[in-house]
Amino acid sequence: MKQRIERVKGTRDLLPEETAERRWVFERMRNVFERYNFYEVLTPTFEYTTLFQLRSGEEVVQQLYAFEDKGGRNISLRPDMTSSVARLYVSQFQNAPKPVKWYYTANMFRYEEPQSGRFREFWQAGVELIGSGKVEADAEVIALFIESYLATGLKDFTINIGDRVLLDEFARMLGVRDDIGLMRLIDKKDKMSQEDFAGALREFGLSKEGVEKVLALVGIKGLPGEVLPKAEELFTSEEAKTEIARLYELVDLLESYDVLDWVRIDLGIARGFDYYTSIVFEAVVPNDLGIGSVGGGGRYDNLIEVFGGKPTPATGFAIGIERLIPILEWKGLIPKPKLRPDVYIIPIGKDAEVRKAATETVTALRKAGVRSDLELTGRKIGKALDYAGRLGVPYVILIGKRDLDEGKVTVRDMEDGEQKAVERENVVEEVLRLLP
Amino acid sequence: MKQRIERVKGTRDLLPEETAERRWVFERMRNVFERYNFYEVLTPTFEYTTLFQLRSGEEVVQQLYAFEDKGGRNISLRPDMTSSVARLYVSQFQNAPKPVKWYYTANMFRYEEPQSGRFREFWQAGVELIGSGKVEADAEVIALFIESYLATGLKDFTINIGDRVLLDEFARMLGVRDDIGLMRLIDKKDKMSQEDFAGALREFGLSKEGVEKVLALVGIKGLPGEVLPKAEELFTSEEAKTEIARLYELVDLLESYDVLDWVRIDLGIARGFDYYTSIVFEAVVPNDLGIGSVGGGGRYDNLIEVFGGKPTPATGFAIGIERLIPILEWKGLIPKPKLRPDVYIIPIGKDAEVRKAATETVTALRKAGVRSDLELTGRKIGKALDYAGRLGVPYVILIGKRDLDEGKVTVRDMEDGEQKAVERENVVEEVLRLLP
Repeated sequence: MKQRIERVKGTRDLLPEETAERRWVFERMRNVFERYNFYEVLTPTFEYTTLFQLRSGEEVVQQLYAFEDKGGRNISLRPDMTSSVARLYVSQFQNAPKPVKWYYTANMFRYEEPQSGRFREFWQAGVELIGSGKVEADAEVIALFIESYLATGLKDFTINIGDRVLLDEFARMLGVRDDIGLMRLIDKKDKMSQEDFAGALREFGLSKEGVEKVLALVGIKGLPGEVLPKAEELFTSEEAKTEIARLYELVDLLESYDVLDWVRIDLGIARGFDYYTSIVFEAVVPNDLGIGSVGGGGRYDNLIEVFGGKPTPATGFAIGIERLIPILEWKGLIPKPKLRPDVYIIPIGKDAEVRKAATETVTALRKAGVRSDLELTGRKIGKALDYAGRLGVPYVILIGKRDLDEGKVTVRDMEDGEQKAVERENVVEEVLRLLP
Repeated sequence: MKQRIERVKGTRDLLPEETAERRWVFERMRNVFERYNFYEVLTPTFEYTTLFQLRSGEEVVQQLYAFEDKGGRNISLRPDMTSSVARLYVSQFQNAPKPVKWYYTANMFRYEEPQSGRFREFWQAGVELIGSGKVEADAEVIALFIESYLATGLKDFTINIGDRVLLDEFARMLGVRDDIGLMRLIDKKDKMSQEDFAGALREFGLSKEGVEKVLALVGIKGLPGEVLPKAEELFTSEEAKTEIARLYELVDLLESYDVLDWVRIDLGIARGFDYYTSIVFEAVVPNDLGIGSVGGGGRYDNLIEVFGGKPTPATGFAIGIERLIPILEWKGLIPKPKLRPDVYIIPIGKDAEVRKAATETVTALRKAGVRSDLELTGRKIGKALDYAGRLGVPYVILIGKRDLDEGKVTVRDMEDGEQKAVERENVVEEVLRLLP
């Protein structure tokens, strides 16, 4: 009985071209992460569901890929790495020298209706810096965030920086009780017209004056030097003034990191998760693909304590690979991976000596570091040449009995079809000479 | 309220040293896989449970990490990659040029009681070669299997080759109906004394003569040239003779691949999975750690058809990373990863100019490719130097107001404590000169 076998809805297979492109992106980012002295960690794919419920906003909890295992435990596939990394820190690293600087490149899971560009399993590259509450740590992480995109060759992008202290303060100024609701609404502002946004704010319960204030706030958006003075006018509390001073310091440091060109302030950014406590940020790349933010992060100074650790400040970011790669492809920034051998060896006929010579030749080439392959299916020379042609293999080595008896093999240039007899013992040398 | 947060039983966190060692091993193997012209694929972490039930032996199905998702689907975390790769082949690659040569480095899952060295999440590096039934394909895969271990620096290991056709034939010769039961028993032979093994065979229902035949079979173990003639004596059917001829051909090819030194025949090898159909093999490294096979594989010519594809022969292997790495560590083959920056920069005091200079210096060093770090927690110079000392950082750059006013910074060699004033604009050059 034949059964139809399928992939689970919302999941994907990554084919050779895609895995190669992904590796290219991850390698570039890992390289920058390590130059910044971050080190890789990897936590288990699943955790007790409680771990994620304890720290995450409602939206994340609703979308948890949660299940009960055979032992009756409530388990979830991780929706991001921050919770797991914080758990790891609390359990083993509270007494380690600070700060702890970790990075990861890993897969995450969410349970939601699959839609274009959204998958149930997706990948992130990210970092966490645990143990410094200083603005220097925010600057280090934001500079690295920017350098990570630059490392992929991307130049035309913006990092928008907001601040949760200011947003909270703002909600208080407006007398809004449901500050999370307000932030969620503000987070969606770029998905609607200003008119619709104002309407939604009225519906949320704001007075006309309140709506105007929110529109003023989300208008604080642009070059730091131009918009931070506006924030100073809007906010009056001591706490807000201290936080604005922090943003000024951040901007100064980012200038020293040589990344200020990419930095904008946008006080209307909340970032979905409810655990951020101060500076937050996200990356946006102008594109025609309908892709919004391609990564983000911020400071989360309460999470370690929520997980039972000593109060410990932390900051970090995550880059969404499934959102970034289509943009890099669209811009032609990822080199096309080479998915074919440089040399393909065809033994002619079934003679044992010929087969032996073919195997020895491919082995010698591989030992010399040449990506090489050997005809393995028993097909005849014509079909084998077709196969090599379809793959775009540049050189084929034909090994037949007659040549072999004279100690030779034939090297064929597949581009012009020219063939050349080469001494068997010189074949590796000849191939190395031919290849670029 | 503080809650105690824990990792799920049977799972692990990989710390920086472990992820670095793992990357080292995987990179070496990937490099060989690609020289052999295999390409990387990655399938989803979970599949419909049916997929794994259709192909796997009882043991695997019992240990599936299975659950019901929110949509009521029966899902399992993958126990290995072969099923998923075969599904991928059937759904998209049946008309692709043959053979398809794929590799993966990925995590697998099993639900069993955690025990020493066995984890619920574990990693494998493996390959699948789909579309050739020729012994040349078996040889290619076994040669690559051997080269994968060699690439880690391992020399003292053995690849034991068995054959399922001969084992099946043997069960028929003995008149055993439960051939899978017999194979399972034979698979365990190395875990007991010969006496206990004979006892277990009697208990299984074999006659005294039958037991002797089994002991003769499992005695066919050693250098191919010495033991294959014994197999010719033991087996008489045409099918068995053809299969033994195939083993002779395999051995000849492995000699041409220059890997025969590591090859032994062991007709008592069954390999747990029930889907193997011909040549099977496993790798054993002599060790004091109680670790048995560190990888294995074989030919599976029926699986593609079971999954609804056209009958298509295939062969492949998987290497168990959690079993291999302790052995490589024990032998001292994995280089100790460098988990510290080459240069650590300490700004002295809170002066904004000093901080700016420190940030600019770390940025310049990083742009030059130097793994560098900056004091980010606001600790004083003494504590910052202690921190650098604990980490084993070779060079520290101290940046203070007075030096800076003269356009200088201080480079300190942490080994001998010697300090040297360096012109600010020459600091990158100086560091590059100092580093090996």
